[in-house]
Amino acid sequence: MTLTADAKGVYVISVTPFTDSGEIDFDSLDRVVDFYFDKGADGLTILGMMGEAPKLTQAESRAVADRVIRRAGGKPVVVGVSAPGLAAIGELGRAVMDMGAAGCMVTTPGSLKTDPQIHGYFAQVARTLGDDVPIVLQDFPLSTGVHISDEVLGRIIDEVPQVVMLKHEDWPGLAKITRLRAAEAEGRRRISVLCGNGGVFLPEEIARGADGAMTGFGFPEMLADVVRLAAAGDMDRAQDIFDAYLPLVRYEQQPGAGLAVRKYVLAKRGAIGSAALRAPGAGLAREAIAEVERLLARQEKRLKELN
Amino acid sequence: MTLTADAKGVYVISVTPFTDSGEIDFDSLDRVVDFYFDKGADGLTILGMMGEAPKLTQAESRAVADRVIRRAGGKPVVVGVSAPGLAAIGELGRAVMDMGAAGCMVTTPGSLKTDPQIHGYFAQVARTLGDDVPIVLQDFPLSTGVHISDEVLGRIIDEVPQVVMLKHEDWPGLAKITRLRAAEAEGRRRISVLCGNGGVFLPEEIARGADGAMTGFGFPEMLADVVRLAAAGDMDRAQDIFDAYLPLVRYEQQPGAGLAVRKYVLAKRGAIGSAALRAPGAGLAREAIAEVERLLARQEKRLKELN
Amino acid sequence: MTLTADAKGVYVISVTPFTDSGEIDFDSLDRVVDFYFDKGADGLTILGMMGEAPKLTQAESRAVADRVIRRAGGKPVVVGVSAPGLAAIGELGRAVMDMGAAGCMVTTPGSLKTDPQIHGYFAQVARTLGDDVPIVLQDFPLSTGVHISDEVLGRIIDEVPQVVMLKHEDWPGLAKITRLRAAEAEGRRRISVLCGNGGVFLPEEIARGADGAMTGFGFPEMLADVVRLAAAGDMDRAQDIFDAYLPLVRYEQQPGAGLAVRKYVLAKRGAIGSAALRAPGAGLAREAIAEVERLLARQEKRLKELN
Amino acid sequence: MTLTADAKGVYVISVTPFTDSGEIDFDSLDRVVDFYFDKGADGLTILGMMGEAPKLTQAESRAVADRVIRRAGGKPVVVGVSAPGLAAIGELGRAVMDMGAAGCMVTTPGSLKTDPQIHGYFAQVARTLGDDVPIVLQDFPLSTGVHISDEVLGRIIDEVPQVVMLKHEDWPGLAKITRLRAAEAEGRRRISVLCGNGGVFLPEEIARGADGAMTGFGFPEMLADVVRLAAAGDMDRAQDIFDAYLPLVRYEQQPGAGLAVRKYVLAKRGAIGSAALRAPGAGLAREAIAEVERLLARQEKRLKELN
Repeated sequence: MTLTADAKGVYVISVTPFTDSGEIDFDSLDRVVDFYFDKGADGLTILGMMGEAPKLTQAESRAVADRVIRRAGGKPVVVGVSAPGLAAIGELGRAVMDMGAAGCMVTTPGSLKTDPQIHGYFAQVARTLGDDVPIVLQDFPLSTGVHISDEVLGRIIDEVPQVVMLKHEDWPGLAKITRLRAAEAEGRRRISVLCGNGGVFLPEEIARGADGAMTGFGFPEMLADVVRLAAAGDMDRAQDIFDAYLPLVRYEQQPGAGLAVRKYVLAKRGAIGSAALRAPGAGLAREAIAEVERLLARQEKRLKELN
Repeated sequence: MTLTADAKGVYVISVTPFTDSGEIDFDSLDRVVDFYFDKGADGLTILGMMGEAPKLTQAESRAVADRVIRRAGGKPVVVGVSAPGLAAIGELGRAVMDMGAAGCMVTTPGSLKTDPQIHGYFAQVARTLGDDVPIVLQDFPLSTGVHISDEVLGRIIDEVPQVVMLKHEDWPGLAKITRLRAAEAEGRRRISVLCGNGGVFLPEEIARGADGAMTGFGFPEMLADVVRLAAAGDMDRAQDIFDAYLPLVRYEQQPGAGLAVRKYVLAKRGAIGSAALRAPGAGLAREAIAEVERLLARQEKRLKELN
Repeated sequence: MTLTADAKGVYVISVTPFTDSGEIDFDSLDRVVDFYFDKGADGLTILGMMGEAPKLTQAESRAVADRVIRRAGGKPVVVGVSAPGLAAIGELGRAVMDMGAAGCMVTTPGSLKTDPQIHGYFAQVARTLGDDVPIVLQDFPLSTGVHISDEVLGRIIDEVPQVVMLKHEDWPGLAKITRLRAAEAEGRRRISVLCGNGGVFLPEEIARGADGAMTGFGFPEMLADVVRLAAAGDMDRAQDIFDAYLPLVRYEQQPGAGLAVRKYVLAKRGAIGSAALRAPGAGLAREAIAEVERLLARQEKRLKELN
Repeated sequence: MTLTADAKGVYVISVTPFTDSGEIDFDSLDRVVDFYFDKGADGLTILGMMGEAPKLTQAESRAVADRVIRRAGGKPVVVGVSAPGLAAIGELGRAVMDMGAAGCMVTTPGSLKTDPQIHGYFAQVARTLGDDVPIVLQDFPLSTGVHISDEVLGRIIDEVPQVVMLKHEDWPGLAKITRLRAAEAEGRRRISVLCGNGGVFLPEEIARGADGAMTGFGFPEMLADVVRLAAAGDMDRAQDIFDAYLPLVRYEQQPGAGLAVRKYVLAKRGAIGSAALRAPGAGLAREAIAEVERLLARQEKRLKELN
């Protein structure tokens, strides 16, 4: 199952479960993969920042990829392969494609300073990975410090056919989706646009022309429902669902702390065995747990009102 | 009326109204000052980033400060005086204090690299402004790139008595409030903490010990209601109100675009004559106006349900 | 005397002399202006970073500009007018042009993220300053964090006719000069290129096609000699002179400390009354003074060997 | 041979030789190891930025480390193990220590924002590597964006005994050496200080108390001579030698281009087979080769005059 520019729906950014002592918990990994698909995911994305990828050794990264791809049973799994150098990107990228990954996600290293450098980088990445490897371009300036203008994005799409998907998390980024779709209406090759940023603008993003979400959340069913409803034009119901979850979405958006919230919720829901982050990540403080529990209780009540 | 460490409530970050041709609209400035106080503001903060301060000449900055302070009629007005150099900070700071400002807000220039430099900077600012000028320390790492650790914040509070207030917009920052209040419980001088970031964590911030909000929003009555209710311990009602406005709060948080949203809402509500931003700021695109109008209609409906 | 694209030679970046108590020393300002011209300067550039411009109030900036322009007696004086906002740039720029400045120097604010933003910024600056104000584009990525690609530079030159000069201090930047001159050989409008970075690559820069230097040094006669000799094709003699001063050039290149070195040398040579920097700048430590004195003694000996 | 705080002399930052087609050239790797020791190196440092480490796969990194350590025949080899995550640092660090490395060099990831974070990071690295692994702390703010204050450096030295050496390349950094040595004179544990930055301040650094150099240059004999002479108190002769090479040292300091210069010189001297950089690195342009050749001819002449 190889990624194409027609991809749509929800590709959940998967957590990597650890035991309380910091070992990878492969049983929980199986369980959370099942959980994501049960809740409506169309695919998964692993080894991203929210998957704690930089804390894994290379051997662990491969083991995680292998386990998830096999568990997914043919459903698409995108693998984050960003690394400081092209050789490491090529090494991991080819390894996971051999395992059956659907494509590779690559973001911009902070060393890229000018638009020609950004464009040139993706051309190099594509040459390194090879003609047959679909690339997801992750556009996440808040984290990378690299801003991709409409012109550069267009040039990459024009000249690097392997780029089949944009993981959109520029912020603010609604107008960027509109301009991208307008350029496609005038003849540019159409690519898939899945949105990140924890889904905080998801209803508007779908209405602007995005094809879905590629992000994480303790309740992935919200992502699936909102994408389905908004794509079907039922914006009011989509926004009702979204608004019910929004207080928690907002709370999960805190950098660093947000992943601890997400794992707390997933563990509480039984999707993983432990909420532990691998060091140097830390779990939730007592006050934060109380805040999350309060939001969860309110969310449950609000969802009942909606049904 | 001079700012003290006992300050609490809502200090609204005021917009600066312009005409469609880019001139300062002083009549609208009077009107928006009245509007903010009518909607429950306890004070105002002017010449901040969201007041488009960097787009004003120095003469304009003084004229705006003078007009707002006079219109406020004795209610406290904090003035942002951040500048690349100490001389300019001192020049503007002393001028606005002579006009009757309640205090001066100062943030960290991006040139500060180490903790001793950050601490030393606020000592220098305090010497430059003089012993009798209350200082609001704006802690906004997402914008400034400078991160203030608990230790540095404590050292500034210990050694710079003019610092009477923290404009808290570290993100994530809830634990920082908790740690600050804990240190005060163990004997450190207590300062006022008003929260920024568009109020997106306001209920939790008040519950953690903040004294109020110093931020902007098209509906400042939300800030006043949430602060009042949360401070009174009615967290459920506070969060109900907050949640009703949250979809718009979230939408206003888009950097750049957010100010255009806020001015659009204020103009629609009659608080200012034109939604125009001074160049190079741009107004709202057609698609964004439709999104805002949809959110406003839903917000009105939801508020009715709550009453 | 208005700056044109034909400008060449040495425009010394002038220091701003202060008394030991931190007041502007206008008598020394006159003296150092005379000193620079006596040592071979063709023009001066004031209110740059090495002129401690951010430490001046706006009134002081105008007073310095007025004094230098009058003392220069018709020789060209470029004034740095970079500021966080366009209004302040326009206000200071028009004021100094009225005083008789030759042109305005503007660099890229750190907020510019993409190539279209960089290009758009200089178009806005040019509109703000007006059609008749020559602009020196300062390209200094190490300080500003903004990198200007060849394409963007070319587009600015093509579309903003007021840009008549590049203050070149990209690093490494030799190839950029070569590519700029190559593009001009193929038809692009030629602009003046004066080089910064303390002159550390000056012989090579002139050989690559630069028109001179716009930088500071305790011995401006070195800049004048090297530019004159290299432009005349006597690269060996140019490099002999350059090499004799290089140990001190290198020592002056230390950010922060370098300006203290420069002022120490200028005070020792009688060009200014005090080596003091305005706070928060600091003078030279005892160990640094000993190092400078050792370098000065060796330099004098080496220069004698060359003559 | 394990690194201790008594280490001194010159640890050359080794290049990684590639063939013209981009494969690692292991024969040249042997040759350049011999070359460095022949020219006076006391040790080597591999897999640093100037060793193009980020362009290597993990398998290649291990192969290079193994080859160099074996060729060094018991002389100390420090290995750069910086990586985005602790797991990868531990994995490579333990692997190279098992091969016989003398110690591991680690720098600050750009994600460190406050002084407590910087201190905490090195404590974590030390725990990850284990009690018996000597650590070289690379302090290189120009590249990493992380500035280490005297206080933080002192706290790391106090609390992390595995840190036995500082690779000093803060800039300006002379005063930092003086303050470090002063603190040691008052009782702090003494660590080795080897200096980087291409050696551009080497004479002054040794005079301030540094123990040697850890940097690269096409003529490593210069580093060895200057360190030996300056340590012996013959500052004049040290500086004479240094000044003769300074025009080339300066030229090699151009980021990016500098490594191409260094490899060009090493290839010309027969130390490596090809001057090629692995992609995306580029070789020297025609104009740059001419500039280097001119500098080499002048340098040879000047060295003859000195002997």
